[in-house]
Amino acid sequence: MFDEPIERLIEYFRQLPGVGKKTAQRYAFYIIENSRERAENFANAIMDVKNKVKLCKECGNYSTSDICPICQKRNKKIICVVQEPKDIISMEKVKSYEGVYHVLFGTISPLENRGPNDIKIKELLARISKDGVKEVIMATNPDVEGDATAMYISKLLKPLGVKVTRLAQGIAMGSDIEFTDEVTLEKALEQRQEI
Amino acid sequence: MFDEPIERLIEYFRQLPGVGKKTAQRYAFYIIENSRERAENFANAIMDVKNKVKLCKECGNYSTSDICPICQKRNKKIICVVQEPKDIISMEKVKSYEGVYHVLFGTISPLENRGPNDIKIKELLARISKDGVKEVIMATNPDVEGDATAMYISKLLKPLGVKVTRLAQGIAMGSDIEFTDEVTLEKALEQRQEI
Repeated sequence: MFDEPIERLIEYFRQLPGVGKKTAQRYAFYIIENSRERAENFANAIMDVKNKVKLCKECGNYSTSDICPICQKRNKKIICVVQEPKDIISMEKVKSYEGVYHVLFGTISPLENRGPNDIKIKELLARISKDGVKEVIMATNPDVEGDATAMYISKLLKPLGVKVTRLAQGIAMGSDIEFTDEVTLEKALEQRQEI
Repeated sequence: MFDEPIERLIEYFRQLPGVGKKTAQRYAFYIIENSRERAENFANAIMDVKNKVKLCKECGNYSTSDICPICQKRNKKIICVVQEPKDIISMEKVKSYEGVYHVLFGTISPLENRGPNDIKIKELLARISKDGVKEVIMATNPDVEGDATAMYISKLLKPLGVKVTRLAQGIAMGSDIEFTDEVTLEKALEQRQEI
């Protein structure tokens, strides 16, 4: 329907998460209709990210330096363990957290053939002895795999005298009890707090 | 919150139509998480569109050649006049149309200080004498400016013996009379057809 270069650009926009054909067309037309300079800057921004962003050697966070700013400045005695680098962004919105992070890059998942050696557990153990870590907060997702991974790591670390905690599971702030599923309600009941 | 190259890429994604901060972040992470090759292809696709896509010298459609495929192959005696190149894409979904197009690149709009000389009316007149055009179909938008532009062009062309028509205005297929606004209903009543 369109000439080849336009079709190709639409195809690349379609590969972005959640983008359908119509949206991809709108994005492509935005590029066509705007200045050459803007398109150049956009293309350069894409390549710059690929050229400059690497993984922090300490924690696995996205970083432009070998060691990310969080690892450089914050309290290394507390490590919050997450599945993916983007989880760090969500956790960082909680301004009160002063510790560092550790990215596992996945979960233990027998179904998908991923064992403990396929995610960054060895690296976590190394940091624990190196930095004298006091507490590990498991912030893996609240699902079967995330729970299993948290349990596995907790069993590894307890003999080393490290306190292992898990993010509380319960009803989300601003949600309705009426519309909360029973698994979440069960967790909320189990983890109920005295007030 | 993110390192500079990531922030910059998020900023460029945000400039796309209808993209907010969260969506732009998801797009940027897609780039970070996928292969270098895919990012390169994406960046190249953006620049290729800027380098190869120009406006058809005849009609103003987006094209990689001087004269677009529609102008090369189709019946030049019928011209459908649209406001923007993207309107051609919508019109082309109507498979039965066999004529060519003419893009005005805007409408006459006293409020925005655009007169007849600010849009491609001169070029339309030139084509009409050159190609012996029999009918001009006005497909400008059904609003005040689109209507005024259609009327203006119609008055210019009628003395030249050219038939000028306008897309019918009425209730959209699949819509509800109950929820159709009164201006549309009035048009539908005016333009009612014998059955």
